[in-house]
Amino acid sequence: MSSTKDIDNLIEMMAKLPGLGPRSARRAVLHLIRKRGLLLTPLADVMQTVAATARECLNCGNVGTSDICDLCDSEKRANGQLCVVEDVADLWAMERSNVFKGRYHVLGGTLSALDSIGPNELRIPKLIDRITTEGITEVILALNATIDGQTTAHYIADNLAGVTVTSLAQGVPIGGELDYLDDGTISAALTARKSL
Amino acid sequence: MSSTKDIDNLIEMMAKLPGLGPRSARRAVLHLIRKRGLLLTPLADVMQTVAATARECLNCGNVGTSDICDLCDSEKRANGQLCVVEDVADLWAMERSNVFKGRYHVLGGTLSALDSIGPNELRIPKLIDRITTEGITEVILALNATIDGQTTAHYIADNLAGVTVTSLAQGVPIGGELDYLDDGTISAALTARKSL
Ligand SMILES: [Zn+2]
Ligand SMILES: [Zn+2]
Repeated sequence: MSSTKDIDNLIEMMAKLPGLGPRSARRAVLHLIRKRGLLLTPLADVMQTVAATARECLNCGNVGTSDICDLCDSEKRANGQLCVVEDVADLWAMERSNVFKGRYHVLGGTLSALDSIGPNELRIPKLIDRITTEGITEVILALNATIDGQTTAHYIADNLAGVTVTSLAQGVPIGGELDYLDDGTISAALTARKSL
Repeated sequence: MSSTKDIDNLIEMMAKLPGLGPRSARRAVLHLIRKRGLLLTPLADVMQTVAATARECLNCGNVGTSDICDLCDSEKRANGQLCVVEDVADLWAMERSNVFKGRYHVLGGTLSALDSIGPNELRIPKLIDRITTEGITEVILALNATIDGQTTAHYIADNLAGVTVTSLAQGVPIGGELDYLDDGTISAALTARKSL
């Protein structure tokens, strides 16, 4: 073989990451080996640290390095608003937009009859708890505009009492060209049209 | 911030790998954190091992874990044929096809006036040495069918004496549909047509 077992192992493990395949894994590993002092060693070190310290927040499901994440720990974020997302990547996307100042709740997926994912497989019981324990006044559903996402949104709205439930507006994305949008988006944007 | 410094660092480093970007790096890191015991720790370990052991073969430029790689070390591969490739990924691709039984020489790129890469920036002097020291009878140029690749092939052919120089045939790839091929490939395949 042209490469030794460890290098083959590394390629195989990298190839299983979402977004990578065998070809890009091989290219990434060659790149890392070429710059092993500058890239591979520091990358291995930070992976070791993250493996030892990263965990899911027991309250909201966000990823951090303590049992209760910085967002749940910050009194500033206790403004009565709770944004519900499917997964941590969505939470990070909301944070990057830098417009939401409340707290989050990560469901860990969507309800799915097909995959037998019910409310107890998600963090829905914990969500219901938090409404009272954290004095939440508005739950903002920021779920994906998929069928499962919308089913989950309706289920949550039906099962929360004494709190305002809103969801992100649907419409044409900023900079979006109509020609590139799917019919559902155009139809949702037309239905939700506003007078100028 | 929603994620701590180490997690951010890890995402940033992953995002710089070829084939990955910020979005796929975030998804890969979340995946690794979710399965940290099963994936992240073993990946960090194998990276550490590879960083400590991987090196370029002093003879051919292949990547391995010793100063002289397994291919250069194997007497079986000393059949007088030497396959010249641009980089290690190409060598691996040739090895996967499992049809070439000789040795390799990795140039480390192509000649490029624009990037001022001349013969001495590549492993061309070493290639010329190897012809005599290893008793090479045929040099097979397996360079990419790009302008720089072909310029490099011509330069090497002009500078090797006393040895047969061949190059990979150009033509329609197996399973290739004409409609999807670029004009250059079709034209090359037509010029090199064979009677049946
Ligand atoms: Zn939290
Ligand atoms: Zn070698």
